Amino acid sequence: MEKNVILTLEYDGSAFHGWQEQENLDTVQGSLQQALKEVTGLDIKVSGTSRTDAGVHALGQCCSFKADLGIPVERLPLALNNMLSGGRNGAGSKVGAIRVLSAVEVEEEFHARFNCAGKTYEYRISMGEPSAFERNRCYFVDGPIDVNLMSRATDYLVGTHDFAAFQAAGGTPRETTVRTIKEIFIASQGEKLTISVTGDGFLYNMVRIIVGTLVEVGQGRRTPESVGEALESLDRTKAGHTAPPDGLYLAEIYFDREIKR
Amino acid sequence: MEKNVILTLEYDGSAFHGWQEQENLDTVQGSLQQALKEVTGLDIKVSGTSRTDAGVHALGQCCSFKADLGIPVERLPLALNNMLSGGRNGAGSKVGAIRVLSAVEVEEEFHARFNCAGKTYEYRISMGEPSAFERNRCYFVDGPIDVNLMSRATDYLVGTHDFAAFQAAGGTPRETTVRTIKEIFIASQGEKLTISVTGDGFLYNMVRIIVGTLVEVGQGRRTPESVGEALESLDRTKAGHTAPPDGLYLAEIYFDREIKR
Repeated sequence: MEKNVILTLEYDGSAFHGWQEQENLDTVQGSLQQALKEVTGLDIKVSGTSRTDAGVHALGQCCSFKADLGIPVERLPLALNNMLSGGRNGAGSKVGAIRVLSAVEVEEEFHARFNCAGKTYEYRISMGEPSAFERNRCYFVDGPIDVNLMSRATDYLVGTHDFAAFQAAGGTPRETTVRTIKEIFIASQGEKLTISVTGDGFLYNMVRIIVGTLVEVGQGRRTPESVGEALESLDRTKAGHTAPPDGLYLAEIYFDREIKR
Repeated sequence: MEKNVILTLEYDGSAFHGWQEQENLDTVQGSLQQALKEVTGLDIKVSGTSRTDAGVHALGQCCSFKADLGIPVERLPLALNNMLSGGRNGAGSKVGAIRVLSAVEVEEEFHARFNCAGKTYEYRISMGEPSAFERNRCYFVDGPIDVNLMSRATDYLVGTHDFAAFQAAGGTPRETTVRTIKEIFIASQGEKLTISVTGDGFLYNMVRIIVGTLVEVGQGRRTPESVGEALESLDRTKAGHTAPPDGLYLAEIYFDREIKR
């Protein structure tokens, strides 16, 4: 009997050319669908909540699919994680670059993308000496950074605004560039800085442009007020640079209904 | 004028087929020599202190070489790190899988391998849920682990012994299998365990076999006393399994003279 299933995933985005499947390239969606085929024998198309770009990580990406599985849903994480391991140079690492954290059956009408009501992205910054072990995992920037200035700048961004100035060209065309940012939280510990952005939805590269702009504020290269001016201008050239994908983590997804995960 | 130079390096071993250069394979030595060629125009052979295996990491590997550089030695780290970056999928990460931490001119007679007097290896274990971000960076083992039992087992290993039972086949032939372990230190924090082993030198896979054996003790699969018996037997089959390279870090190198690094 066909079931509707939601998977929750983490992945190291540096191992992939983004979420969306592409011929002859390692992608998260493609790798996951290949593993599903090996486990179930079926050609399954999964719908991801978020089409993360190349290099962007996930701590809690979701996707859903419908299939007549043949094995209990609760056995999927172990079976898929076995298939997804062994990635390093054929040396047989037991842990894959994608980890299926949970698999749960959901009601028939549920869809991981259409029923998404909001997301939290985390962006990790390091002001310390670059490290081989943190490459592709954070954005190394020159300190010092004034977190108070950054926080003042976030006041302009939180709320419902037209974020046209914080959108890169090249994304899926959208009906409107109005979005609501519910919260921007900046946590700093030593040389590490994490910027968490929660909103109902995000334009193409929106979080990375917000972070790039906030970094410029923190470094004293622009004022907090200039961020409000950039927002009002609706002009991409008035906002700051696009922070690299390396530091971006899709942290959590909220749905418009209670979903056990 | 020819100078004798020592480099100190860190690297993420999961990106390489080991230290030693091999044709058509990414190796640490090969990548470093390629970067040296791009920076200096010279074909330089570096001598590493330790020929780390595929997947083994370094926090403080050293190598030395002699060359008439053309640029000041102190400019080498920045120049080499620029050349060593950009590794991820062509997306242009600014941080490489190898980082040159320092470059210092040393006296003419010094050689990174021949003047090595000892090393510390760190081995990182996780008893927690495997994570995509820690894959290739630690050994995921099933807990619980009794650290006190492990510590008791280390008492048999510390000191000067014939470690024939803790040597894998396939290494460079050695005159003697007698080695001195100065210290084994086990630090545990939550689900993480780090085993530091300091000695004057190590046989092929010696640290990984020690760790594999200690893990079996910690899991209650063998007694601390059995480790002493394995050592005395000089028989590889009496020691435990070889822990994977993923968790092994060449942490520090000691020389037989004062070397500024």
